[in-house]
Amino acid sequence: MINITFPDGNVRAYESGINALGIAQSISEGLARNVLSAKVNGTVQDATLPIHEDAEIQLLTWKDKDGKATFWHSSAHLMAEALEALYPGMKFGIGPAIDNGFYYDVDPPGNQQISANDLQKIEQKMVELARKKSPYVRKEVSKKEAVAYFKEKGDEYKLELLEDLEDGSITFYEQGGFVDLCRGPHLPDTGKIKAIKLMSLAGAYWRGDEKRQQMTRIYGITFPKQKELKEYLELLEEAKKRDHRKLGQELELFMFSERVGAGLPIWLPKGHAIRERLMNFMRDEQVKRGYKTVTTPHIGKKELYMTSGHYEKYGEDSFQPIHTPKDGEEFLLKPMNCPHHCEIYAHRPHSYKELPLRIAEFGTVYRYEQSGELHGLSRVRGFTQDDAHIFCTPEQLKGEFLDVLDLTTTVLSKMGFDSFTAQISLRDPETPEKYIGSKENWENAERAIIEATQEVGLETVTELGEAAFYGPKLDFMVKDALNRSWQLGTIQVDYNLPDRFELEYIGADNQPHRPVMIHRAPFGSMERFFSILIEHTAGKLPLWLMPEQYAILPISEKFSDYSQNILDQLAIKDIRGYVDNRNETIGRKIRDTELKKIPFMLIVGEKEVGSGSVAVRRQGEGDVGSMKIEEFAEYFQELL
Amino acid sequence: MINITFPDGNVRAYESGINALGIAQSISEGLARNVLSAKVNGTVQDATLPIHEDAEIQLLTWKDKDGKATFWHSSAHLMAEALEALYPGMKFGIGPAIDNGFYYDVDPPGNQQISANDLQKIEQKMVELARKKSPYVRKEVSKKEAVAYFKEKGDEYKLELLEDLEDGSITFYEQGGFVDLCRGPHLPDTGKIKAIKLMSLAGAYWRGDEKRQQMTRIYGITFPKQKELKEYLELLEEAKKRDHRKLGQELELFMFSERVGAGLPIWLPKGHAIRERLMNFMRDEQVKRGYKTVTTPHIGKKELYMTSGHYEKYGEDSFQPIHTPKDGEEFLLKPMNCPHHCEIYAHRPHSYKELPLRIAEFGTVYRYEQSGELHGLSRVRGFTQDDAHIFCTPEQLKGEFLDVLDLTTTVLSKMGFDSFTAQISLRDPETPEKYIGSKENWENAERAIIEATQEVGLETVTELGEAAFYGPKLDFMVKDALNRSWQLGTIQVDYNLPDRFELEYIGADNQPHRPVMIHRAPFGSMERFFSILIEHTAGKLPLWLMPEQYAILPISEKFSDYSQNILDQLAIKDIRGYVDNRNETIGRKIRDTELKKIPFMLIVGEKEVGSGSVAVRRQGEGDVGSMKIEEFAEYFQELL
Repeated sequence: MINITFPDGNVRAYESGINALGIAQSISEGLARNVLSAKVNGTVQDATLPIHEDAEIQLLTWKDKDGKATFWHSSAHLMAEALEALYPGMKFGIGPAIDNGFYYDVDPPGNQQISANDLQKIEQKMVELARKKSPYVRKEVSKKEAVAYFKEKGDEYKLELLEDLEDGSITFYEQGGFVDLCRGPHLPDTGKIKAIKLMSLAGAYWRGDEKRQQMTRIYGITFPKQKELKEYLELLEEAKKRDHRKLGQELELFMFSERVGAGLPIWLPKGHAIRERLMNFMRDEQVKRGYKTVTTPHIGKKELYMTSGHYEKYGEDSFQPIHTPKDGEEFLLKPMNCPHHCEIYAHRPHSYKELPLRIAEFGTVYRYEQSGELHGLSRVRGFTQDDAHIFCTPEQLKGEFLDVLDLTTTVLSKMGFDSFTAQISLRDPETPEKYIGSKENWENAERAIIEATQEVGLETVTELGEAAFYGPKLDFMVKDALNRSWQLGTIQVDYNLPDRFELEYIGADNQPHRPVMIHRAPFGSMERFFSILIEHTAGKLPLWLMPEQYAILPISEKFSDYSQNILDQLAIKDIRGYVDNRNETIGRKIRDTELKKIPFMLIVGEKEVGSGSVAVRRQGEGDVGSMKIEEFAEYFQELL
Repeated sequence: MINITFPDGNVRAYESGINALGIAQSISEGLARNVLSAKVNGTVQDATLPIHEDAEIQLLTWKDKDGKATFWHSSAHLMAEALEALYPGMKFGIGPAIDNGFYYDVDPPGNQQISANDLQKIEQKMVELARKKSPYVRKEVSKKEAVAYFKEKGDEYKLELLEDLEDGSITFYEQGGFVDLCRGPHLPDTGKIKAIKLMSLAGAYWRGDEKRQQMTRIYGITFPKQKELKEYLELLEEAKKRDHRKLGQELELFMFSERVGAGLPIWLPKGHAIRERLMNFMRDEQVKRGYKTVTTPHIGKKELYMTSGHYEKYGEDSFQPIHTPKDGEEFLLKPMNCPHHCEIYAHRPHSYKELPLRIAEFGTVYRYEQSGELHGLSRVRGFTQDDAHIFCTPEQLKGEFLDVLDLTTTVLSKMGFDSFTAQISLRDPETPEKYIGSKENWENAERAIIEATQEVGLETVTELGEAAFYGPKLDFMVKDALNRSWQLGTIQVDYNLPDRFELEYIGADNQPHRPVMIHRAPFGSMERFFSILIEHTAGKLPLWLMPEQYAILPISEKFSDYSQNILDQLAIKDIRGYVDNRNETIGRKIRDTELKKIPFMLIVGEKEVGSGSVAVRRQGEGDVGSMKIEEFAEYFQELL
């Protein structure tokens, strides 16, 4: 008998040679049906692989990231089986699972081309083969056997892959007659793959080397249920509509210019107004919490980054140093604001009575990214952080952490995000030598973070070994309206920079002490946050954020004065709008205003002037009735 | 007889051979006493030099810049006369007039040193010699005579200067036995120099060449009246007290850090708060005037500045290009915001109906200055402009100019500057080939500027030939509390950038047209403006600008709650303050608050709590009596 330990700590005894599927069956038939693979002593393997020794086991289903990877990797093999059936002589490169689905790089025989029109045919073949419920059969082979097999098959790609593999570690997987060189793991059988969609085609160089053969990469995604595929495709469609790059252009929020440079966003008036409003909101919250705001330059001497350690670590991969025509100086675009803030702390002595010192800055930083990696506002080369650094005593750490947690949840909630969790990254307890700062400080900091999250009741996941070498941290994970997860708002404890900048405060004992530093940025980057907010709200921002909250649409020029009068009355109540005085029909004005996603339209004509009212339309909802100006103002303010 | 034309256009006939002094005498004895030199047909010359032909004449007195220069240059000769008397064998380099006074570079005989202690002695000698009223006598000499004279005297410096002079153009000036090689002009005699102060000593290399002899530079200043010297020295003393670098440090407004880099200001919380308030004030004014605000990156591709022409013109003297690790790109720190704003204009088509388009940005720019040229916040390497670019039709130019004039005067007045004039820089009508843009456009623009300044009644000086090659401009000149003039707020018309960026709008005629561009920045640079404002106000900023408008000073800890209560009450009325809760005596608290230049102190003790009042002290003025909170709020608001 062997002892199997489950993730909850339960231990059960089983016959040696049992597999994960058998273990699942011993619990329930339902579970067994859902098991895709299993993590045994930390390694993901086939659910059908026998277990001969005591082990820790985690049964992997569709809910687990590793379970999905098994599912999709097996789907890549299924696609290969279909391709071999449809294109005899097809050669295969690699076919991994990816974040959403899988792909296979293939080289069709002769001069055959696979086009988008062929994808449906391949899909159908896959469905047909899946229904056969062919088991994925694992087979250990010698290198000689393996080479002989692919030599006979004539697949030079697999032969080349084999060159790098050691004899004794090589396995084949076979399903429905298709044999692949593969480490696995795989599903028990193809029958689990119920819903299949091949997404797209692309060219891909063999082994990513542009001097070598160009292969055809086929992307696909599969699901255990048709319903899940349908939902996924709808989500994709919705995401495309909400793409912040598309909305940013349509609503004239921001732009890029080739002459200014890729990845360097230019905020147009409307986008700038929203960004300012976001920043003002954060500023006000920070003032309430005793933050002090500063402004620092966008460059710093190389020496600054030698002191901070950034140059050594990132120098070569960053924007290169700026030389001066005389004086022989070297400057760097600042990749982060912390070294500047450390210099502010260091410029005069501090007493413990002044701590915590919370130095905030909307600091624009520049970090080099390869042009191919850039993406709208989410991945850029220049961005503004809602940055702050808190310098405090070790005893103040927990209190400050609590305050930052409160600030972050307050801010994100106000933005319409209501689903968030946090990841706590701690030391790897096995390798204490990897971390700087005393054991005592680390324990204090880790305890502070854990206790703080517990006190505010934040749902957390703890990852050992994910801490930075200079301190533990906490990352907020936020779910958007499409149920996608985004990392926002990191809170990082830092023992390193105070050391490197030799920061001190005089304690109550009249002795110098080193402060602890907390880096925090609830939005993270204004640019990235904005892109998430736009996609989360599909461009219909919270009312308080909208630069233009309503438009007055006069039916004809006759009502200009009345319109201006309404504008003035509402401006006093801090309700922001404009008059569409164009010489267009009212239908056209409504359509255009609708497209600009202005939340309210106030239509005014003869009737409205007579009764001192406006006909109110709400964006995306239509007519909400006639109201006196006062009534509209009240109605509006209740929505804020 | 010859005809002499005066600046007011009057013409008088005189005997040939009359000099400026004689002409002055013919008008009044008083004027003759005040004449220092004269501008004859555009050249400044001795008032005693005979005039033999018809000429335009301007009699120069102490009120004229050129008159002062004559006075100070003659004073340098007087100092040399004194030095020769006190240090026989003294050798002389050059001795020019400067902005405030004069200097002479000298080489004392033997191993003698001139120290600060010697200055008084030299001053006294100068006073003694001045009283002799020795005339400055001009003498034309041949090069041979001149060389012979200085060879005999043994002054190798003058001999070297002579090498560069052409025979026939050489003059000596002699007063009281001291002979100098000099072009002049000079005063009639030394008697006019009534008040003398030698200011300081410095080392100076002969001809500015650090490989050559180091000479002693003696700085001095002189006046026609003792009272003027006294006032000047008081002004210097006051300026020293108001030095923004000193106040900036004392009030913790800003700092510099060696590691961040010279000339790169870091705004500390209090300075940042004032800067924000200045910027918000400007923002509000701009919003009222229909400006749209944008945010653009601090770098741009080299191509951007090739297009704008900045790279060709300034590239070599600027911060050098930033290279990327991959992609082979080159970026520059932006030296100005206009190219970015042109790209914004260019990113989509425009109709004449959308013009004028006013694009504003508080844009931080970086311009290289040699480290020796840097000075506090007034001369820096990175600064934020309150920049905007107006794109308009030629017909709209005057209207826009009027609006910018109004904005600038509104803003400067609000800051407490009430004395300003403007300089209008126009084309040199003799060299039309130096300017780009059609003659029609130039005429239109120049007329617009002149008419606009006339309409608002702004006092102006017009300078021909001072326009940029791409358009005429207007500079505001502001006088501060010490009567010093500062250039602020340039308004520049530009025909060049719209051409280079090929900007267009579709006119009412449905044809493409090129817009005109106006660059304008009422503050100019936030940094430089701030330095002027601090010195103008001696750190006592207008009340509305102060980040901390009052401090509550509780006599003991017992009154903390009451203090907090006052703070809350005043915060509602948007009056900003803080409580000084330190465990210090009330005397100490008052002194510290006084030094921090907090406008009001509200002292609270037993008596105040009893009567719901505060004892009010005003900074620099002392007690202003006891007031109820409401009374203080009203009193305060009336001062805003």
